[in-house]
Amino acid sequence: MKTGNKLTIGLFGFGVVGQGIYEVLQQPLTLQATIKKICIKEPGKKREAPAELFTTDYEALLSDPEINVIVELINDADEAYKIVTAALRNGKAVVTANKKMVAENLAQLLQLQKQYATPFLYEAAVCGSIPIIRNLEEYYDNDLLKSICGIVNGSTNYILTKMIDEKLSYQKALQGAQNLGFAETDPSLDVLGIDAVNKLTILLAHAYGVVTHPANLLHIGINKLDPYDAKNAEEKGYVIKLVAQAVKLSNGKIAAFVLPYYIDKSSQLYAVKNEFNGVVIQSTFADKQFIYGKGAGRYPTSSAVLSDISALRYGYRYEYRKMNSSTEITDDFYLRIYCSFETIDDIILKDFEWLEEFYSQEARQYLTGVIHFKKLIEAGWLKKESVSIIVCPDGVIEDVGFRKAKKLSLQLAGSHFTEKTSETVSNLPKELLSI
Amino acid sequence: MKTGNKLTIGLFGFGVVGQGIYEVLQQPLTLQATIKKICIKEPGKKREAPAELFTTDYEALLSDPEINVIVELINDADEAYKIVTAALRNGKAVVTANKKMVAENLAQLLQLQKQYATPFLYEAAVCGSIPIIRNLEEYYDNDLLKSICGIVNGSTNYILTKMIDEKLSYQKALQGAQNLGFAETDPSLDVLGIDAVNKLTILLAHAYGVVTHPANLLHIGINKLDPYDAKNAEEKGYVIKLVAQAVKLSNGKIAAFVLPYYIDKSSQLYAVKNEFNGVVIQSTFADKQFIYGKGAGRYPTSSAVLSDISALRYGYRYEYRKMNSSTEITDDFYLRIYCSFETIDDIILKDFEWLEEFYSQEARQYLTGVIHFKKLIEAGWLKKESVSIIVCPDGVIEDVGFRKAKKLSLQLAGSHFTEKTSETVSNLPKELLSI
Repeated sequence: MKTGNKLTIGLFGFGVVGQGIYEVLQQPLTLQATIKKICIKEPGKKREAPAELFTTDYEALLSDPEINVIVELINDADEAYKIVTAALRNGKAVVTANKKMVAENLAQLLQLQKQYATPFLYEAAVCGSIPIIRNLEEYYDNDLLKSICGIVNGSTNYILTKMIDEKLSYQKALQGAQNLGFAETDPSLDVLGIDAVNKLTILLAHAYGVVTHPANLLHIGINKLDPYDAKNAEEKGYVIKLVAQAVKLSNGKIAAFVLPYYIDKSSQLYAVKNEFNGVVIQSTFADKQFIYGKGAGRYPTSSAVLSDISALRYGYRYEYRKMNSSTEITDDFYLRIYCSFETIDDIILKDFEWLEEFYSQEARQYLTGVIHFKKLIEAGWLKKESVSIIVCPDGVIEDVGFRKAKKLSLQLAGSHFTEKTSETVSNLPKELLSI
Repeated sequence: MKTGNKLTIGLFGFGVVGQGIYEVLQQPLTLQATIKKICIKEPGKKREAPAELFTTDYEALLSDPEINVIVELINDADEAYKIVTAALRNGKAVVTANKKMVAENLAQLLQLQKQYATPFLYEAAVCGSIPIIRNLEEYYDNDLLKSICGIVNGSTNYILTKMIDEKLSYQKALQGAQNLGFAETDPSLDVLGIDAVNKLTILLAHAYGVVTHPANLLHIGINKLDPYDAKNAEEKGYVIKLVAQAVKLSNGKIAAFVLPYYIDKSSQLYAVKNEFNGVVIQSTFADKQFIYGKGAGRYPTSSAVLSDISALRYGYRYEYRKMNSSTEITDDFYLRIYCSFETIDDIILKDFEWLEEFYSQEARQYLTGVIHFKKLIEAGWLKKESVSIIVCPDGVIEDVGFRKAKKLSLQLAGSHFTEKTSETVSNLPKELLSI
């Protein structure tokens, strides 16, 4: 599409966000854009818009030469991919909010954009209303990005806030999130960290020019967190957040994952509560920056979609400039993690480089230690229901040479050890004592 | 200049930021831009760049046809204006960080941009590294902006942080800021709120399309804050911040000012400490957003200047789209303020609509009350050295009709009143009792 064109929209989907867009375009805005047709699945439903707008025929939108913008807001990622690729091939600009579809098909979608020179914008797919993609594209293009570290999933953040602030169990907190509409009936996309890793995949492309598939990135959600983990966080003055992180190591390679994280008060993420999202961006020149806002919901998402539509007026396209560099992802780094489990046999202690803390009580045991990332990915015990891990503050460690040279130490902590330390120590597995 | 042009820069000024830009352009960036000439005032100084780059002749830069970008980074706003206008007339794109120059000449600079169709970018002029202008231009163009509320001056924020967190006096905190280079030897631009109101002037243009002169906006700095005010803030669980605020009232007009503000824990501004800046943006659809980062300093400012330079590659210009609306500034609203003074005669109580709190001790007295903004602007007592005012949380009030209808009340508070209230009350000025 050409700059300055009148925007005539074909809208796919009339769910929460689709309806939001429709409503928002009725407001007095500087943007002049018209929705010509809305494609929906079920024709029978009563909807808050004139009946003549609706159709169930894809082609009524995709083949209409007057429609120059397709806004895709349906749930089904596979159907969405069909719609989006057809639209790009027909030379129509596309705006979508579908993170799953974008993340899982990123390479192909990049190829299509190149081939058909058509804008494809998806600001709403990551952190809803927060203009993170646009800023990574434009504003952090010329700064040397050290890391991005974000709370990118509102429902898990809501659940974690309730677990910490109100000491609810994971199940109770999830229930609350579902009642408020922050979590789906099937919450697995959110709580298993899949939604977050989809977003991380998209962020990696714009932050570092890395194109990968979400399946290649380690992601652990919040479903295995134990009430004991929350209690432990509180004692240490931390909160637990599900964090999507990408860090540029000194060798130029990128460490990237989605994991529960202990966040201390000094981090801007500490105060990101409930359904809000927040991203901390660290760069060489601008130093630390933080963007915060609503990550989901009808109007925040509509606002982001609208900004994309608006940018089409002046022919805006993502340029993916950083893809010319040959930056790649690595699994060669270390993490300092907290790990809790039911019994010591749940994990393999020897997988750790060293331990820094070990605590045992009847119901639950935990340790903190440093582990190589590749070992963590490959650890079978990580998948056990009874094992929960949380990254410690500043938990990404590039080099452990300095530490290996020293004698590895094991510090014992915790109240019920204080009076009969020797006995307790002798009760610990031999393996642990010799590590 | 045309899109896709090679960027050849003429740089004015080689101070902290000028040098930063020079250094940053030596780094491996995706942006390819060359500094061809640097114009400086004093030719004799030793500088960390090849001698042949430097000149004292404006025309060597302004008349060089190869130079298509002028980056203006000198201190003197009047000289800067001459350089910038000459450059725009010569068809050269201009990037500047000079908020004073932009704010004081905004109308003329807008006219010139129109006339010569030349990009003029100044992201670094407001909040240093934070991309606030670009986001207001692009991202919040289609959302209905309710308010912007920002800490936009790093040196005053540093001073206030020290006054609250470390209980330093204003003088001691200022000294500390000067020692660290956060405040100038003559700090008046900062501490009187002049720098902040310059930035507010620029924000108003991009947020609401309002073009005004900083002299038209009420601005009070932090130089009259009393240690007592800080103590009072602490007791109430507030911090004091110098805030630049613009609020769209329900009649569509804009309330705008720079004033010290009580900030409570629920605000994202609460945690903006030391030299950092932060802006909360409230809009109808995206709801509350917050951007945080370093507002000044060599590299943060360089980073913003560089983003502007980079945007010139694709011919980016501010479009000032909101100026087509006829939004205007109003002084017809109310503020809830805290006001402290040495004796009650320092102020005129009758200027207040009503009082909500009055506290008196030997050294200092204070009240909180609601006052019409126009009355506040015109109040002679506001200029007295002994009078300090601070806006209360959510202090902008549109309508007081509901309250006027009730009997106006005066609540007395404070420890030394508790035991001998009647005596103390009878010692109060009659005027206060009858308000």
